[in-house]
Amino acid sequence: MTVEDEPRVTITRIAQEAGVSVPTVSRVVNGRSDVSPATRERVEELLRRYGYRRRSGQRQQTAASLIDLVFNDLDSPWAVEIIRGVEDVAHGALIGTVVSAIHQRSASTRQWMRNLQARATDGVILVASDVQSPLHAELRRLNIPTVVIDPAGVPAHDVPTVGAANWSGGLAATEHLVSLGHRRIGFIAGPRQLQCSRTRLDGYRAGLEAAGIAVEDELIQQGDFYHESGFASAGRLLDLDDAPTAIFASSDQMAFGAYEAVRRRGLRVPDDVSVVGFDDLPEARWASPPLTTVRQPLSEMGTLAARTVLRLARGETIESLRFELATALVVRDSCAPLAR
Amino acid sequence: MTVEDEPRVTITRIAQEAGVSVPTVSRVVNGRSDVSPATRERVEELLRRYGYRRRSGQRQQTAASLIDLVFNDLDSPWAVEIIRGVEDVAHGALIGTVVSAIHQRSASTRQWMRNLQARATDGVILVASDVQSPLHAELRRLNIPTVVIDPAGVPAHDVPTVGAANWSGGLAATEHLVSLGHRRIGFIAGPRQLQCSRTRLDGYRAGLEAAGIAVEDELIQQGDFYHESGFASAGRLLDLDDAPTAIFASSDQMAFGAYEAVRRRGLRVPDDVSVVGFDDLPEARWASPPLTTVRQPLSEMGTLAARTVLRLARGETIESLRFELATALVVRDSCAPLAR
Repeated sequence: MTVEDEPRVTITRIAQEAGVSVPTVSRVVNGRSDVSPATRERVEELLRRYGYRRRSGQRQQTAASLIDLVFNDLDSPWAVEIIRGVEDVAHGALIGTVVSAIHQRSASTRQWMRNLQARATDGVILVASDVQSPLHAELRRLNIPTVVIDPAGVPAHDVPTVGAANWSGGLAATEHLVSLGHRRIGFIAGPRQLQCSRTRLDGYRAGLEAAGIAVEDELIQQGDFYHESGFASAGRLLDLDDAPTAIFASSDQMAFGAYEAVRRRGLRVPDDVSVVGFDDLPEARWASPPLTTVRQPLSEMGTLAARTVLRLARGETIESLRFELATALVVRDSCAPLAR
Repeated sequence: MTVEDEPRVTITRIAQEAGVSVPTVSRVVNGRSDVSPATRERVEELLRRYGYRRRSGQRQQTAASLIDLVFNDLDSPWAVEIIRGVEDVAHGALIGTVVSAIHQRSASTRQWMRNLQARATDGVILVASDVQSPLHAELRRLNIPTVVIDPAGVPAHDVPTVGAANWSGGLAATEHLVSLGHRRIGFIAGPRQLQCSRTRLDGYRAGLEAAGIAVEDELIQQGDFYHESGFASAGRLLDLDDAPTAIFASSDQMAFGAYEAVRRRGLRVPDDVSVVGFDDLPEARWASPPLTTVRQPLSEMGTLAARTVLRLARGETIESLRFELATALVVRDSCAPLAR
C-alpha cells in the first residue's frame, strides 16, 4: 500500500463532483434528513471515496457512529437482555453496538482503551463497573460520554447510572414469603461490591423487620449471582439445624442452583422449600416449577442507558443522574404456604 | 461545527511534527511492532488529530478494525455463547465486535447495510442467515468477507459456513434413548429452513432405523427452537393415544418447554418421560433435573467463525469451506430406562 501526498478534499469539491450545492453536501455530512435518498447516496459515496473528515479536536467524527457496551464477562443470559435493549436503540439511530468483555484484567482493559481511542466511539456503557477505577478516569480525560448499569462501589457524581428498584424488589419478594406464613427465610446475596447486591439485601432485611422477624446472620449466605454459588449457598442453608422453609435467592441463576440443592436432598420446590429469584430471565418461566421472581427490566435498562449516552454525546445535560427502573414481583409456582 | 478547507496531512508532515523518520511513521500506520511505545503513542496521537487516512479504494482502512456479528434476534442464551466466542478472538486481535439484530425485516437489513458501508468493517459473521438473500449479494458486491454460522437454505459455494456435527449429535441422542429401552421416541424439530434442523432430524431417523424402529410421522413435531414451541409440541406428543415414553427435543430451550408439558400433566422427568435436549446451554446443567443433551460447541463455533473471517480479510484462501465442530452427548439426569 503506497502513501500519497494529496490535498485534503473539501466540501466544495465534493459538491462539484456530485453536481449538488455546497449546503446539500453539508446537510449530508451533518446527518440531516432533508436530502433525497439518491442524492445522499451519491454524496456519501464521494465522502467515503475521498476519506473526507471534519476537524473536531481530539475526537474523530465518523459518518456512522458506534457505541460501546462493556461487560466484565459474557457468560450469562442476563447479558443478552442488556445487549438487546442497547442494540434496539443503537440500530434505530443508525449506530453500531460494539460489545466487549474486559474480564476485570487490567491488561485487557488497557487493550480495550487503545482499541477505543483508535476507532472512536460516541459513548460507552459499562456494566457492573467500578466507577472509581482508572478506566473511568481515562474515559473522563478523553471526554467520552459514559453511563454505568449496576455500578460497583460508589458512583462518581457526574456519571449517570441505571439500575432497577432493587430495594423495593427485595422487599416485595420477602413480603410475599412472609404473607405465605414463612418466618425462617434464607437469603443468598450477590457480589458485595455491587450496589444492587447490597440494596436487595436491604430490602430483604426491611421485609423481615416490618413483619417483626429478627434478621439472623446464618440465614444470609454470600453468592456471586451465578448458578454454582446458589447451589452451594442453598446447600448450606438447607443443612442448618433449623433450616429455613423458604429461600430468597437474589438472582434467578442462583435460584436455579437452589432448586438443585433442594432436589439433591430429596426435597421438592415448593412443597418442602419455597424459592424466589430476582431478574425474571426468560428461563424463569420455563423452570420446573416456573420461578416466582422479581422482574428486573433488563432490556429496558439497556435501552435507557443507550438513550442517555447518546444524549450526552449530543451535548445535552442530563437532569437526573440516578435512573431506577421499577421492579415487579412475578408470582409463579415456586412458593407455597408454610406447611403446618 | 464549521467546515474548513485544509490540505490533507501526509506522512511526511506527521514525521516532522513527531520528530521521527518517515519509515517510523509508516511502521506505526501499518501496525508494525518494531516501534517503541512512546513513539507509537506520539505518532498515533498525531495521526488521530489530523484524521490521517490511507487511500485504499472503495473500503476505508481505519487504525483499529471492527467485525460484525449479525443475528436475526437477540433473545436467547444461545446468542451470548456465540458472542463470547467471537469477542474472545476479536479482543485478542485488537478488533471490536459490533453486534446487531436484523429482525428478518428487509427495512432493518437495508439500514444495517447502510451503517456498515458508512463505518467500514473487516468482515461479517451472520447467524442462521439465508445465503441466497439479497443481503449476501450485497456483501459480495462490496467485497466484504462473510462467514455464516448455521446457514438457512443451501449455502453459497464460496461462503464459508460453520456448524456443529448435527447428524451425529442427533444419532447419539437417539441411540442413548434406544439403549435405555425406549421404542416410541418423539422428536421436536427446529425451523425447517435451517440446515441444522434437518440434519438433527436425519440423525434421529438414522438412530431409529439402526434399531429397527419404524419412523412415525405423528411422533415428529414442528418447533422453532424456543421454549414455547417445545411446550406446545411436547404437549401434542404426550396427548397422543399411544404417547412416546421419551422425547428428543432438538434444542435445550424446547427441552425445558417439554419439561413443563410433562409437569403440567402430573408426570415426572425422567420417571415417566425421558427428555433429551440439544445445545448444552449452561442452563442445562441447572435444570431440574439436569438435562441430558448434545453439547454444541457454540462459543467455539463463534471463535472459528471469527478466525475464518479475519483470515479472509487478510486475503488468505480458506481450504475447506464447510466447518463442522464435533458434538458430544452429555448424559445427566433427565433420562431413565423404560419402566416395565
